[in-house]
Amino acid sequence: MALRLGLEVDFVPGDWRHGVDPAIVEKKLAEDRDRKIKSVNVVHNETSTGCLSRIAKIRKAIDRVGHPALFMVDTISSLGSTDYRHDEWGVDVTVGCSQKGLMLPPGLGFNAVSAKALAASKSARLPKSYWSWEEMLAANKTGFFPSSPATNLLYGLRESLRLLEEEGLDNVFDRHRRHGEATRRAVRTWGLEILCLNPEEYSPVLTAVVMPGDQGADAFRATVLEKFNMSLGNGLGKLKDRVFRIGHLGDFNDLMLIGTLCGIEMGFAAAGVTAKKGGVSAAMDYLATR
Amino acid sequence: MALRLGLEVDFVPGDWRHGVDPAIVEKKLAEDRDRKIKSVNVVHNETSTGCLSRIAKIRKAIDRVGHPALFMVDTISSLGSTDYRHDEWGVDVTVGCSQKGLMLPPGLGFNAVSAKALAASKSARLPKSYWSWEEMLAANKTGFFPSSPATNLLYGLRESLRLLEEEGLDNVFDRHRRHGEATRRAVRTWGLEILCLNPEEYSPVLTAVVMPGDQGADAFRATVLEKFNMSLGNGLGKLKDRVFRIGHLGDFNDLMLIGTLCGIEMGFAAAGVTAKKGGVSAAMDYLATR
Amino acid sequence: MALRLGLEVDFVPGDWRHGVDPAIVEKKLAEDRDRKIKSVNVVHNETSTGCLSRIAKIRKAIDRVGHPALFMVDTISSLGSTDYRHDEWGVDVTVGCSQKGLMLPPGLGFNAVSAKALAASKSARLPKSYWSWEEMLAANKTGFFPSSPATNLLYGLRESLRLLEEEGLDNVFDRHRRHGEATRRAVRTWGLEILCLNPEEYSPVLTAVVMPGDQGADAFRATVLEKFNMSLGNGLGKLKDRVFRIGHLGDFNDLMLIGTLCGIEMGFAAAGVTAKKGGVSAAMDYLATR
Amino acid sequence: MALRLGLEVDFVPGDWRHGVDPAIVEKKLAEDRDRKIKSVNVVHNETSTGCLSRIAKIRKAIDRVGHPALFMVDTISSLGSTDYRHDEWGVDVTVGCSQKGLMLPPGLGFNAVSAKALAASKSARLPKSYWSWEEMLAANKTGFFPSSPATNLLYGLRESLRLLEEEGLDNVFDRHRRHGEATRRAVRTWGLEILCLNPEEYSPVLTAVVMPGDQGADAFRATVLEKFNMSLGNGLGKLKDRVFRIGHLGDFNDLMLIGTLCGIEMGFAAAGVTAKKGGVSAAMDYLATR
Repeated sequence: MALRLGLEVDFVPGDWRHGVDPAIVEKKLAEDRDRKIKSVNVVHNETSTGCLSRIAKIRKAIDRVGHPALFMVDTISSLGSTDYRHDEWGVDVTVGCSQKGLMLPPGLGFNAVSAKALAASKSARLPKSYWSWEEMLAANKTGFFPSSPATNLLYGLRESLRLLEEEGLDNVFDRHRRHGEATRRAVRTWGLEILCLNPEEYSPVLTAVVMPGDQGADAFRATVLEKFNMSLGNGLGKLKDRVFRIGHLGDFNDLMLIGTLCGIEMGFAAAGVTAKKGGVSAAMDYLATR
Repeated sequence: MALRLGLEVDFVPGDWRHGVDPAIVEKKLAEDRDRKIKSVNVVHNETSTGCLSRIAKIRKAIDRVGHPALFMVDTISSLGSTDYRHDEWGVDVTVGCSQKGLMLPPGLGFNAVSAKALAASKSARLPKSYWSWEEMLAANKTGFFPSSPATNLLYGLRESLRLLEEEGLDNVFDRHRRHGEATRRAVRTWGLEILCLNPEEYSPVLTAVVMPGDQGADAFRATVLEKFNMSLGNGLGKLKDRVFRIGHLGDFNDLMLIGTLCGIEMGFAAAGVTAKKGGVSAAMDYLATR
Repeated sequence: MALRLGLEVDFVPGDWRHGVDPAIVEKKLAEDRDRKIKSVNVVHNETSTGCLSRIAKIRKAIDRVGHPALFMVDTISSLGSTDYRHDEWGVDVTVGCSQKGLMLPPGLGFNAVSAKALAASKSARLPKSYWSWEEMLAANKTGFFPSSPATNLLYGLRESLRLLEEEGLDNVFDRHRRHGEATRRAVRTWGLEILCLNPEEYSPVLTAVVMPGDQGADAFRATVLEKFNMSLGNGLGKLKDRVFRIGHLGDFNDLMLIGTLCGIEMGFAAAGVTAKKGGVSAAMDYLATR
Repeated sequence: MALRLGLEVDFVPGDWRHGVDPAIVEKKLAEDRDRKIKSVNVVHNETSTGCLSRIAKIRKAIDRVGHPALFMVDTISSLGSTDYRHDEWGVDVTVGCSQKGLMLPPGLGFNAVSAKALAASKSARLPKSYWSWEEMLAANKTGFFPSSPATNLLYGLRESLRLLEEEGLDNVFDRHRRHGEATRRAVRTWGLEILCLNPEEYSPVLTAVVMPGDQGADAFRATVLEKFNMSLGNGLGKLKDRVFRIGHLGDFNDLMLIGTLCGIEMGFAAAGVTAKKGGVSAAMDYLATR
């Protein structure tokens, strides 16, 4: 989580194994008697850790303090893959993108903006042009863009939205939850540790796994890539070489998930990683009965 | 196998669980004292049964009798997936296509023609225009076609040949053999019967499996399609509803194979088919060590 | 035109500057007192000459004689570009394709077959397998194909039919007629000769132009290709090097036609061909007012 | 032109019919005795007016004054279409994009940065994250990106650069110059006025034309779009409805240009615009001899 105070930013460190703690948000805002904090910035689904922050609860924490800070949420890797409610949860600015749950190439960014955020933007004195919403909002009224839009991606977006609606958003969300649970069952059967410690915050779109033993995660990832042409996510920042990440978002089905888990289980053997067998079977058992 | 005698065709029945028997070819030709048989026609890889006929041995059988019949081979589902030698094996006419081992949409057909077959074609009296090689051979000298070619597929062909060469044909063939063996290990572990009875004739591109119990294979296939969005091959002709077929050809890797086998194993549970578990694990064990 | 008599074919020569003459059809059939002629085979739009045969009039000629021959029409380059009525004009077999008026790559062939033709096919003794309609008609009842269909082209066909319906078939036909007339006005203004001599038989999809002077048409075509990256159709058969052909079919609009005509007019200058200027202007004047 | 002074910007107005005047740049910088001006910002090819600013001359003007301001140039619509020399012309920051001369969809931005600009960026106190070059430069050393790159466009870029090199950059630039001259000859023949008044500053990628008579340019553009499915550029800002713009950049050849000009000339007739005929002919005459 980051708290913005004018031009400065107060990055509130976490343990990288939980989402943003609503209690800490509440405490920080309560301490800010001068109301210097301008915004609370949270990533909904943290791609680097596989933790999903509880946005509605953070909103309630802000409200309990009655702090006027804007609430801004990054839904880059959650939009279209898990439930998210900009209005109902009282978010002021939501940012999303095309290249994850919407199953498109990178190239589109989305902003949902509350009236309060728009007013703040108008009175803000930090110079901005690219970041100004004014020009886009004016052009949007007529369905046009202030500069060259990525028309090709807009056609793609129309199709990906059609796909999501055809499956039904609830079914899409359920599919991701189901794949997350199947993945975690495989991880536990392998005898490995899931990075995210709070079951309420398990990400439905990716699972970060703590690398066992002395071998680095990156060497293991390299073996899997070379042997099975499968690219696992790497550990980022302080998790570098300590975790590998299993993505299960977007256009993904049961058999693709099993193929993925199998690449890991066979990769353990190929790379000489100490892990139990049976993860794939455990995932299959779960998927077959749910 | 089919033996062509002028306008008539002598279809030599098999048991659908073996490839073409070289001994029968030899016997049939030996009996043909008047040399009425014009050609011996064999399918290299029989898609409906998963049996691979031994072309080189059939050639030797023809040669032992000294019969002048043309030897014609259909490589529709084998070309580019398993070893095949038109010249070395003394085949007169080989036909192939774009949509299997060459990994393209349907639309291209290939003919390899021996001098003997070309001479026979010129002296044949059956009227033909589309089937005549003359016009194509004349145009081929300049790199052109007698009518509108499927240029888009020719670009695709250039790319698919590049892919095959990059991997190396021997590696491609080995990959298919390996996937065939992994599949059969899964089938045996499930306690099911492989349709092809002769290990020398196991197809490296597909495996037909005898459906166990009373349930029809097509009901099982429908369950797998609905539950896992995976389409298994159906039984053809007299095998209708009695077998399902597992394809493992073309652009296919270990994880895709495991995903496929998993769809079957989970499908057994979903459809209430009596089969043992562990097929996927058996395939993984084999793939991981080979 | 070709008349088929059993296995023999009587090619009725024309002058390559007219469509098939209904009077000749009538005369030929009237002379055939023994009813040996099995079918009258006509190309609707002759791509090599730019002549459009009058199918309805040929049907009437056949009917006047009361000859039982089948009437077969090739609509390869006319289907979807000009009016055609299989049932109303009493055609027995119509063949069409994907790569001209339907704006797709080559790969699909279409057959429209009358009950009379189907009956004849069943009683015919010429061996056939690929050419037999039986298997396809059986599979068509369920919407499937007897062998691997070009699924990719079927998706394309759905889209091209949608495009044709969106524009409206009458508008599509009118657009082609209009482009044909604009092209001919350009040709006449250049002082050149249109190959097709009968205005009733002008093709709406291409115009063949007699090459003026001593320079061969192929040298001129090569200049245009090199200078303007535009490929004009060549003369075929006895017209080789004597004509060039201007295609104006499929997904084609006014500005593409003008660009095409301009490539020719500028090509005349570049290749030193004696031709008047003003063809492009004449075409523009016509298009602007119609 | 814009001069940046700390957070403020001094937009230096022009008459919209010329490029940036080097003399004005020189005067402005000479007056800035306190060296408050941080950068001189110029658009190389002005899309809204069809004027090409003379970057090398502006550089010399800056140098004559000995002013330390950074020189920043926008090459959005010129890169890859006309000569441009970041190093030789002493530009500090050049920005370019994928969707014009590089013939790709929008989605890629390019920055060329001098050591001087990089140093200024490091010492600048305006908060920036997205605009910071640091992270990108660090990742670029290994050939990677700090976040999800538009991989699809990078493949496209490889191909478009190959196309430009195959044609030869000098030939590409010459093609654009030639098309600009042909377009202007058409405009003059129509009796219309070219917006750009200085022949040294004619844009080689687009030509803005002053709309004659009382009819608005937008009504004319609407007629051309409806009748000929061709979209002309509109007038922007104070030129709204007063000019239309003819683009001739990217993957564009002689016949496409003629088709474009023809759409305008036929559009004049269709929309009742008073303009002389013969523009297309004038362009053809020029193209045929050059």
